[in-house]
Amino acid sequence: MCPIMKSRLRPGEETAEITAPREDATVQFIGRIATPWATRDTCPRQGRQDGPVCRITVFEPWVRALEGIDGYGQLEILYWLDQSRRDLVRQNPKGDGQRYFGTFALRSPQRPNPIGTAMVALERVEGDTLVVRGLDCLDGTPLIDIKPSRCEFSPKAPDKPGAQDGPT
Amino acid sequence: MCPIMKSRLRPGEETAEITAPREDATVQFIGRIATPWATRDTCPRQGRQDGPVCRITVFEPWVRALEGIDGYGQLEILYWLDQSRRDLVRQNPKGDGQRYFGTFALRSPQRPNPIGTAMVALERVEGDTLVVRGLDCLDGTPLIDIKPSRCEFSPKAPDKPGAQDGPT
Repeated sequence: MCPIMKSRLRPGEETAEITAPREDATVQFIGRIATPWATRDTCPRQGRQDGPVCRITVFEPWVRALEGIDGYGQLEILYWLDQSRRDLVRQNPKGDGQRYFGTFALRSPQRPNPIGTAMVALERVEGDTLVVRGLDCLDGTPLIDIKPSRCEFSPKAPDKPGAQDGPT
Repeated sequence: MCPIMKSRLRPGEETAEITAPREDATVQFIGRIATPWATRDTCPRQGRQDGPVCRITVFEPWVRALEGIDGYGQLEILYWLDQSRRDLVRQNPKGDGQRYFGTFALRSPQRPNPIGTAMVALERVEGDTLVVRGLDCLDGTPLIDIKPSRCEFSPKAPDKPGAQDGPT
């Protein structure tokens, strides 16, 4: 944890009046992400698929859940931004006191549930580790999910009767 | 909660040997999603942007965090699949005993952290509610995050010196 990032608040930024986040459900960390970026200041603002190689290592008992992942070129990665404030409702990304945005109009790591999502290119699988490009998170970031890209994935079972026929 | 879905396990499917998920972090529900689908059997397997209208209602104190969201046509929605098993490592989506996939090679709701992601088309904002198309989740699903689509979003602050220059 980084106390400086936790406490950072720029002039005019607004927080929700909560003393602690509600605890409606729990997340388990299922792996860890190794990236070239050891500090927030050196992380890129958005990952690029021609960016540096990063390594996503999955912990047991989840390694077997990677079976078949090498059939995809693009994966969606979810991770926990564990150094983020969770109470910001309005932010001033440039820190210039000029332009403010609601938290949901930004991809800032500061959000009520600090979950980052990235679309990465899968280069190869090495046992319990995925070698990918396209991340922008800190070295050591906890992994919470891996999914096939929704663009490449097609459901493995036929559509269900009545599905998509709801009222519009 | 639906005890039938919780206990469903098909022949040959494998679970992790865990009695309960680790609790590394907590999620707060920040809204609720209204869809036309009251049961799992009627949900489509994947949302479509020409599918039915759904309504995402944000709870206080997060309504103000929607400021500026109407500048985007596409949003990424994260929600908590609260009726899912969390211990499946290998699944048989068709239930036919033939083809098995690791959990991370599927977009199934059964996963260690049951977080669904969808890309939706924003039709309009009505106060605390977003009217969207493209979801596939159950009526009443808890909302955990809203982000601008990474395709439409451009960072609001200039890139940081040294970013993207890590070793490849």
